This record gives sequence, C-alpha cells and structure tokens, in this order.
Amino acid sequence: MVRNLIEPRDFTTEELDKLFDLADAIIQDPKKYRDVCKGYVLASLFFEPSTRTRLSFETAMTRLGGGVVGFADAKVSSTSKGESLVDTLRTVENYADIVAMRHPKDGAALLATKYLTRMPLINAGDGAHNHPTQTLTDLLTIRHYKKRFNNLTIGVCGDLKFGRTIHSLVRAMNRYENVKFVFISPEELKMPKVFLDELPKESYRETSDLEGSIPDLDILYMSRVQRERFVSEEEYVRLKDFFILDKEKLKQAKADMIVMHPLPRVNEIATDVDDDERAVYFKQAGFGMYVRMALIMTLLGLEEA
Amino acid sequence: MVRNLIEPRDFTTEELDKLFDLADAIIQDPKKYRDVCKGYVLASLFFEPSTRTRLSFETAMTRLGGGVVGFADAKVSSTSKGESLVDTLRTVENYADIVAMRHPKDGAALLATKYLTRMPLINAGDGAHNHPTQTLTDLLTIRHYKKRFNNLTIGVCGDLKFGRTIHSLVRAMNRYENVKFVFISPEELKMPKVFLDELPKESYRETSDLEGSIPDLDILYMSRVQRERFVSEEEYVRLKDFFILDKEKLKQAKADMIVMHPLPRVNEIATDVDDDERAVYFKQAGFGMYVRMALIMTLLGLEEA
Amino acid sequence: MVRNLIEPRDFTTEELDKLFDLADAIIQDPKKYRDVCKGYVLASLFFEPSTRTRLSFETAMTRLGGGVVGFADAKVSSTSKGESLVDTLRTVENYADIVAMRHPKDGAALLATKYLTRMPLINAGDGAHNHPTQTLTDLLTIRHYKKRFNNLTIGVCGDLKFGRTIHSLVRAMNRYENVKFVFISPEELKMPKVFLDELPKESYRETSDLEGSIPDLDILYMSRVQRERFVSEEEYVRLKDFFILDKEKLKQAKADMIVMHPLPRVNEIATDVDDDERAVYFKQAGFGMYVRMALIMTLLGLEEA
Repeated sequence: MVRNLIEPRDFTTEELDKLFDLADAIIQDPKKYRDVCKGYVLASLFFEPSTRTRLSFETAMTRLGGGVVGFADAKVSSTSKGESLVDTLRTVENYADIVAMRHPKDGAALLATKYLTRMPLINAGDGAHNHPTQTLTDLLTIRHYKKRFNNLTIGVCGDLKFGRTIHSLVRAMNRYENVKFVFISPEELKMPKVFLDELPKESYRETSDLEGSIPDLDILYMSRVQRERFVSEEEYVRLKDFFILDKEKLKQAKADMIVMHPLPRVNEIATDVDDDERAVYFKQAGFGMYVRMALIMTLLGLEEA
Repeated sequence: MVRNLIEPRDFTTEELDKLFDLADAIIQDPKKYRDVCKGYVLASLFFEPSTRTRLSFETAMTRLGGGVVGFADAKVSSTSKGESLVDTLRTVENYADIVAMRHPKDGAALLATKYLTRMPLINAGDGAHNHPTQTLTDLLTIRHYKKRFNNLTIGVCGDLKFGRTIHSLVRAMNRYENVKFVFISPEELKMPKVFLDELPKESYRETSDLEGSIPDLDILYMSRVQRERFVSEEEYVRLKDFFILDKEKLKQAKADMIVMHPLPRVNEIATDVDDDERAVYFKQAGFGMYVRMALIMTLLGLEEA
Repeated sequence: MVRNLIEPRDFTTEELDKLFDLADAIIQDPKKYRDVCKGYVLASLFFEPSTRTRLSFETAMTRLGGGVVGFADAKVSSTSKGESLVDTLRTVENYADIVAMRHPKDGAALLATKYLTRMPLINAGDGAHNHPTQTLTDLLTIRHYKKRFNNLTIGVCGDLKFGRTIHSLVRAMNRYENVKFVFISPEELKMPKVFLDELPKESYRETSDLEGSIPDLDILYMSRVQRERFVSEEEYVRLKDFFILDKEKLKQAKADMIVMHPLPRVNEIATDVDDDERAVYFKQAGFGMYVRMALIMTLLGLEEA
C-alpha cells in the first residue's frame, strides 16, 4: 500500500512523534543521512509557483543524496497541451520514486493518488485546501522550542478567515491536551465557525487586541492580512496597525514566547523584531526543510539511515 | 569522432539492438548503473517547452548518477539577447559533456552539431522534423512486449499527415521484415505520399475504419487528432468519434495486442481503456526513460557499467 | 566571519593568485575534485535571467559533487508576493550553504550580505554595478594564455561607456605592473572619466581606430555595441563596421594575441574569426566555470580537495 500525505491528519500523533524524532536525528547528524536517498528521484511538480515550498522540498531531497526533476510553473508543463492532471501523474510515476505536487485546484492531490499505484505523493498545497507540510513545519518548530505539544497557549493573529495554514495548525494542535487558542483578528477576518465548532468551548477566545493578548502567550503565530480582504481602504488603514507586531508590543511577551510566521511576510511583523531571540520565523523555514527530509524518507520506507 | 543522434536512422538496426540490450540490462538491475555517469553533466536545453521529454532526459541522467543543468524555456535563455544558437551551443560545450536539445526550428540539431567538436548532441525534437528519442522509445516498447520487430501488423491511427512521431516510427519499422501497416485516418489526414512511396506496395493499406481494422493488429499506435486540422467544425464533429479508441472497440482486439500512444493524450483514447492490460502508453513513457539512459551511456562511450 | 564576493577587488592579488592556482589544479585533474562539495547545496537565485552565468555556476557546483536549488527568473520567486529580498535571503540561508545571486538592482548583493550570518554570497551581477565572476573569468583566461598579468597591452573595444564588464576588468588589471590600455570606441561610448582618472596618464590612450590599434595588442577584449546607444540610426550604420572584428582586421594582429569577449556576441566579431586559434572567447566561458568551482570551494573553506 502506497503511503501519501494529503492532509495533516493523515498521520496519527504517534506517527508524527516518530517523524519528528527522525527530523531531530537528521538535525543532529545530517552527514549520516546524506546518501540515504541515493538512486531515488523526487518529482517536484509545481503547477503554480511557490518558491519557498519548492526550494524546501528540493533541498530536502538533495541533502538526502537523491535526485530532483520537475517544473516550477504550469506554463512549462504538458497541461498547456490539454493533458489531464491524472495523465501527467501516471506518466511521472514511470520516472520518479516520489512526487511533491502543488496545484491550484482544491482536491487535486487526493484525486491524483487514486490513480497512482507505486509512487507516494506529498501534497505541497492544493488550492485553498491543504498545505500539510507547512503544518508539519509548524509542529516541528513548536516541538523544538517548547519540547511539548500540550499545555500551551497559542495566539494566532491576522487573517483567520482565509488562512489555510492557520486552520490546519489549529486542527493539528487540537489533538493535544490543554492547548488554549487566542484568535486575534479584525471582525471581518475572524476564525470561521466550522473550525471553532471543532474546539472545546473553554479552549479558545476571540479578540481584536493583539497587544493586550501577548502577555499570556507561549506562541504567537502571525500571518498576513491582505489589503483586499477588507471592506474598504479606510477600514484597512484604520485596523492594520493593531495587527502589526513590533518591538514595542513584543516587550509585553514572556521571555520564552516564540514568534512564528509561515512566510512570506509583508509588513505584519516589523523588521525591528527580526533580531529578537524570540523571532523564530526564519529558523522555522529551516525546520521545514528537515521535516520534509524526514517525510520523504518515511514515505519511501527508508526510515533507517 | 563525436557521435550524435539527429534522426532515428543514425543508428543501424545492429546498433539499435545493442542499445536496446543495454536498456534491458538497466531495467533488470538499475542499481548497477546508478553511478555510471558520475562526474558527467548533461545540458538540457529546451528552446521550447516539452515537459515530458525534458523530465525523461533529466531523470535518465540523474538515475545514472550524472548532473543536469539547463533551461525549460527559451525565454530564460541568452537567445533573448540576440545570441545565435551556434554560439549558445559552443559555449555550453565548455560546461557540459553531452547535450539534449529541443528547438522549434527544423534542422536546428544538425546545424548545431557542425560546430561542436567534443560534446555529443541528442536531438530532443527540432520543429516538425525529427524526434528520434520518441522513436527509440516506441521501438523499445515494441521489443519489450512483442520480443521481435518483424512479422508484425501495426495499425497507426489519427493524424497521419502531420504526425512526426508516426512518420519516424513507420520509417524505423520499415527496416524490419514482414511488417504490415494499417493506416487509419480521416481522408484529410492521410499518410503523405512521400512516406508511402518508401514502403513496399503490399506492406500497407489505408482505411478510415478503426473499429474494423482492430482484429488484425498486433500493435495499435494511437495519436492526437487536432481539431484545427479539419476543414470545418462539422467535419471534425462528424469524424472524431470514429478515431477514438474505447473499451467497446477494444473488445475486437487480439488478447496480446498492445495500445501505444506518444502522449500527451487528449481524448482519442477513452479513459476506460487505461486499466486494460493491453494499454501500455503510460509504461511506454517509462521505456522512454530507460532508452535515454542507454543512449546517454552509449554516446558518452560508457556502455560498460 | 563569512567571506563573500561582492566586487572584484574583494580579493587581494595574492588571494587571486591562490584562487587561480586552485582553478588550474581543477583543470589539471577534475576527477580529484568531483566529490569535494558532496553534502553542500548552492542556492542559485536569478532574479533576472542570465542563462550563461547561471549555467556556469550550476555546472561548477554540480562538477564539485554539490547540489543546486534555485530559480532562473524572478517571476517564479516569492518576491511576486511582495516579499523583501532580505527575507528571501534569510530564508534561503536555512536551506543552502552558499548562494549565487543575480539581481536587477545596484547594490542588492551588498545589502543582502548585511543580513546573512552563515551563508557566503557570490554576486552574480547586480544591476549595472558589478559582475565580479566575469572579471575572475577574464583574469583566469589572461593568466592561462599569457602566463602573466603584467607587461601587457590590452585593447578594449566597443561600448566603453556602459560596459560594466570592461570597467571591472580595467580596474582589476590596473593593479598589476606595466599594463597599457588602448580604449577603442566611438566618441559617444568612450570610457567614463571616473575610470580614466584611476589610471596613470601614461598607461592608456583613446582611439576610434580598431584596425590601426590591433598590431600593438597582446589582448583584444571585444564587447557589444548596442544600436540604441547611438544618437541616431545613421550614426550607428556609419560607425558600426569600424568596431567589428573580422578575419581581415585580425591579419594585423600578433601571432599570440588573444581575442576575448564576455558573450553573448551579436555581430561585433564576424564568425569567420571563430576558428582562428587566437579567438578564445568560447574557451573563456569554460574558464568561467573553473574559476567558479575554485571560488565556491574557497568561500566554503574547502580549498583542500
């Protein structure tokens, strides 16, 4: 049976622990793993551009000694000749051992796996749907800095209505014990009810006050607030500063709070925060690479280096 | 003397046998060959996009342990600065050990080789002219499933007028004994006389009846029929279904007939055929990778693993 | 302390000698170096296309056994999402061990290094500013054919006003003893005063006579003259032939003069010159690859193979 990663909850918490243990082992001794995928090929199929995610996957495979082929943009793919996604994947299955696929359509990843018989597929983002390796990245980062997934108070700030990354993270963290969420957003961009309904009532609160929320937090997860999501330009201008983290607001935070961000950042974190020890968002990208190394090894059945 | 592959008949049938033997050896034991091109670099120069062919070449070199550099699209090449093709190739000859080149102009590959002194060139398609590695792919597929190149009845169906792939295959198969062709196409897209004239009169017949032709065939080679090739939309609508292979028509076929297609497919093979054992077009793509591995090794003089 | 290459004079002449010795050693015995960067990854970030330079870097790293990730064009980078260059680099620092960056903005390379703490950066061209690896390429080529950097008479011909490559080369050669320059250009495209002022008065002369200048030269460095740089089309047509090197003009040259060109060439060197032994511009591209191999090794602290 081929093992895929379509959405974050495809792995049990026990399987995640194993995955993160492997990622840690790689971080400890990367040289040990630098030939583990020798002779294997990753197909990196990005039907829409996403440099950060693509580079992370391709570096991960390269650091494991494997090869990478693919494309960064659908314009150079055969789909411009009218080929179906399924045909592309069934063809690539004859070239590559594992595939990471980004696609603009919701559900594309799941659809593709129905036709693959041999090649594991990693969903590197399908429309507004899922982006599970971002969630794995976030979890590994939390585990690294907090040494636990339970007993945490997590502030998530920004566009909670459309933020796929945030929805996934909340769902993933809700599997652990005594996790409290503080949802910080303008009224227009609140967490959708469908996600709130999955949470125990006492586990979250909603607010539009970033500054006032900071002192309680163990983790502050920032995200982009896109101008076009506001009802008016005036509303955007009026509100945006409340949702920008800067050095001043950070003074209220615990000494061991961490600031995360899936990147790219636009202006929702002032650059004067970047050199604060609590700002871990660039390092977070590094954990993204390591967790993808562990994931590739796991799906290829190469957990033992 | 540098050895190139510009058109399919650059190799004698004896040389082809040797090439296919090597491809088979790689298929049997790929691990044995995974370092054979270590230290060698393939330049993959696609002046027009062709994802399938490009991925096939790049995976081939990667699986041999070699490196790959190049571009997927002329827009990112120096030709946009007005550089001549020959200058680009003479420069690349100083970087790479072997080059696979796709170019929109007929004859580009042959022209380029006149100026190269050291680096073998593989024509990965030049305009409507030649696409020899597709022909090698087709031949290896036939050899794999039929264990012979002679005593075969081959139906080729679709756009026989403009189909470069089909012209090459027919020429290549015409070198073997007792090969019969059934050319299946609408009147507008019949095989050009110049190709028919190369064949013994008794070796082929022309028809527009796909369904009725199927029972005799050992191989059915399908190809795309492009809408814009018909004289009118009405004509296209009237005719297209006759040239679509589906499960129903396939019932008439021999149990060991194989269905081939160079891909990408649009709708000329119904997807209900895909899981029939006789449908080998996705596996055909895999043979394309293996034959390119054998070809790269051969042109680099590395036939002994 | 991280070592970068932002502009050609970041290396002393002694350091350059060491670098070129290493490049020569690689040329002598490339096999010895083919695993020296195993386990290391080069990020090849081209925010504007430059195929030649990019292929040279990527082949260099590949030939050292290292991995390469990156992009060939800013359109597929996260900057399209509004991300700052610095954020992109700080992220990539978590993936890669060394970066080669091409950027359209002057000063981009220097800016980026201010935020990098671990990953050496090689400026692969920043706007009209610097393109130091082209200068290293030119110097290694000169050293290879002339066995010295002093006592040379160098003609530089073409667009001396805007030619970044030429400005860098002149500055670099001015560090050696008894180097004479002959600046050959139309009046409109003369060497800017700021560069002339750096040179000893007796070390150069200016002329618009290519043919008459040739007999004295040890090196003739040709460059493109772009049509749009002239005040009028008539002026361009009147002048351009004077600055085209052809077989006829080359007859005047010393037997051991070398003709260099940074490429791509348009028409400023007639193709009838290409097969003259003195025409070294295609081989020059090869030296570009070897000097980049030496540079990558040096910046990574891997000088000992």
